[in-house]
Amino acid sequence: MLPAMIPATLPIPGAPVRIGDTLEEIETPALLVDLDHLETNIARMAKLFQGTRARLRPHAKAHKCPAIAHLQLARGAVGFCCQTVGEAEVLVVEGITDVLVTNQIVDPHKLDRLAALSRRAAVAVCVDHPEQVHQLEAACVRQDSRLGVLVEVDVGGGRCGVPPGSAAANLAERIAGSSRLHFAGLQAYNGKAQHLRGIEERRAAAVNAAEHASVAVAAVASRGLVCESVTGGGTGTFLFDLEAGLLTEIQAGSYALMDADYARNQSEPRTTFTQALQVLATVISRPAADRAVIDAGLKAIAFDSGPPEPLDLREARCQRPSDEHCELVLGGAAQSLSIGQKLRLAPGHCDPTINLHDWLVAVRGDRVEALWPIAARGYRWPGQSS
Amino acid sequence: MLPAMIPATLPIPGAPVRIGDTLEEIETPALLVDLDHLETNIARMAKLFQGTRARLRPHAKAHKCPAIAHLQLARGAVGFCCQTVGEAEVLVVEGITDVLVTNQIVDPHKLDRLAALSRRAAVAVCVDHPEQVHQLEAACVRQDSRLGVLVEVDVGGGRCGVPPGSAAANLAERIAGSSRLHFAGLQAYNGKAQHLRGIEERRAAAVNAAEHASVAVAAVASRGLVCESVTGGGTGTFLFDLEAGLLTEIQAGSYALMDADYARNQSEPRTTFTQALQVLATVISRPAADRAVIDAGLKAIAFDSGPPEPLDLREARCQRPSDEHCELVLGGAAQSLSIGQKLRLAPGHCDPTINLHDWLVAVRGDRVEALWPIAARGYRWPGQSS
Repeated sequence: MLPAMIPATLPIPGAPVRIGDTLEEIETPALLVDLDHLETNIARMAKLFQGTRARLRPHAKAHKCPAIAHLQLARGAVGFCCQTVGEAEVLVVEGITDVLVTNQIVDPHKLDRLAALSRRAAVAVCVDHPEQVHQLEAACVRQDSRLGVLVEVDVGGGRCGVPPGSAAANLAERIAGSSRLHFAGLQAYNGKAQHLRGIEERRAAAVNAAEHASVAVAAVASRGLVCESVTGGGTGTFLFDLEAGLLTEIQAGSYALMDADYARNQSEPRTTFTQALQVLATVISRPAADRAVIDAGLKAIAFDSGPPEPLDLREARCQRPSDEHCELVLGGAAQSLSIGQKLRLAPGHCDPTINLHDWLVAVRGDRVEALWPIAARGYRWPGQSS
Repeated sequence: MLPAMIPATLPIPGAPVRIGDTLEEIETPALLVDLDHLETNIARMAKLFQGTRARLRPHAKAHKCPAIAHLQLARGAVGFCCQTVGEAEVLVVEGITDVLVTNQIVDPHKLDRLAALSRRAAVAVCVDHPEQVHQLEAACVRQDSRLGVLVEVDVGGGRCGVPPGSAAANLAERIAGSSRLHFAGLQAYNGKAQHLRGIEERRAAAVNAAEHASVAVAAVASRGLVCESVTGGGTGTFLFDLEAGLLTEIQAGSYALMDADYARNQSEPRTTFTQALQVLATVISRPAADRAVIDAGLKAIAFDSGPPEPLDLREARCQRPSDEHCELVLGGAAQSLSIGQKLRLAPGHCDPTINLHDWLVAVRGDRVEALWPIAARGYRWPGQSS
């Protein structure tokens, strides 16, 4: 079945908590979102876009959660980025009418689903090779639909994308020549730039990305084509992308929830976001005065961008995660930690941490205010195997 | 609802494939289990236990999949280890009658569920502190049940566990003195030893663990108590644990599915297992002659024990994963890889990779033979929030 929005006040079978419970009553490990912080982050970003010509199209891969998407929409988001067709399907079912898949789609099942989805919402997708264009076109014929298509340009990230010159223009022409496809512009995203620590490093990377993208815009224009949209940027560079003035849409996603890795970026106060995403864990063992073990490990927290950081304890750090354990090395006052005590951790990387959980427990202060399904996690199109 | 075994021949809404499909037809990223390899691994391990006094109690955290548990049971497993109460609940619902939670449980909800579960199956759990014993006892009173309890001893792993001398004996006495708890023996597991690369290093670690455990057995015996069970070992050390002769139960789990990290251990041919767990991915971009991008990243494969290893391609290696992407660096013949081509990868670490997926696609050769729900992934007790 397609997931539906679940009213937050109903008891929810299998959910990790009841509405109104305190933090102490939540079974761990649990994924929390601090609503005050979430709302502050979303409002802060909306304010930073005021007076700019760029639009905010947050990346939904960061949260996979329709409830958060609707909060972003209410504060000016023009639509959403998705990384998978499944994420796009879930958002459209949940009432989002404008989605961009910031990725190449080549699986025939997925192409059909994407083309079918475009009959229900404004749907666009990226390409970096004529073969993908050909397959998208064929899917649109099969589904009797039309798709927006952006050419992904490599602006320094070195992942997907064509070089910004004639290769980009050739692809744009190929798209524009199709009666089933609409040339919608360029994707100019540099993932590597987001996590450069220094402000000036990130500014330089954003300027460099804009220069590459402007080459591509000019190359496309030389063929008589217009880039309606030039999309890119992220939580690390959006301010510098706005300054550079080339991008028409910014894809930042992590800003709403934040993580410990983004928090390590140097940033100005007005672009500093607060740690809204937290993993609640319980101390299950105290094998030594300077060591505790908690019940949240590799299956509750993503460690790809470093260990999580304890929020309630100074002089404590996480190390040596295993499936359902993580060690805490304790110093000073943290050594008073006792078995059964709960603590909150800031995950190193929000996106893959979210992806480990089925529910977000939305808390205000010490109380559970809502329970949000992470509806796009593990989502599979229901018709596929029937 | 409690998950039920789903007959493998029904179409399954939301499953990634149909029974009878070929590898080419499977939507990616998908988690595959090669049935020939799985059966070989399970049979090989069963054979290695013949003529020994030790029992095999495989760790179900490695697969979270009742279908695999039943295959292991049919080849002589005496029961299962679990790392969480949820895993134990799923196994019991699926017909497993003997489970050991190889972990400390302190959450009051989980304690109640564990105590309730012990009315339906033989259930045991580990402790390393009197407070845990106290809480288990109270839960058994509330649930009118009895639990088996093992004292976890630190035999070199440095995670949970008490030292092997009087601390272990004190805890054993405390357990044995409870009318609600049954002192069931010792857990003597050294996780660190499993991944030492050299055969002699692992043998030495196993001998060392056995020496520590025998100190604990003697300390417990000095109080007039008998260790029915001394449990430990894993896929890395089980042969040396069997040689050492102290453990009565071996907890190996990864051997059934295997992963690239365990494959890096030096091993004798008779204890060499085959890579049954595979992630199927599709090439979505070919940005350069020596570089491809696939559609399986941090949300489909665990990278904590290194990147996955391509199984179908020599001269290709994975690097720089992001949420839904991973780069392949290509040399030689691998440079002929084209967009849309599928390939299989051996994950670095099986347990957290399994935990990212909801389905195991069971293949024999090139055909899908069954679809197995990873029923214990994300499992939450349904009564909890109602």
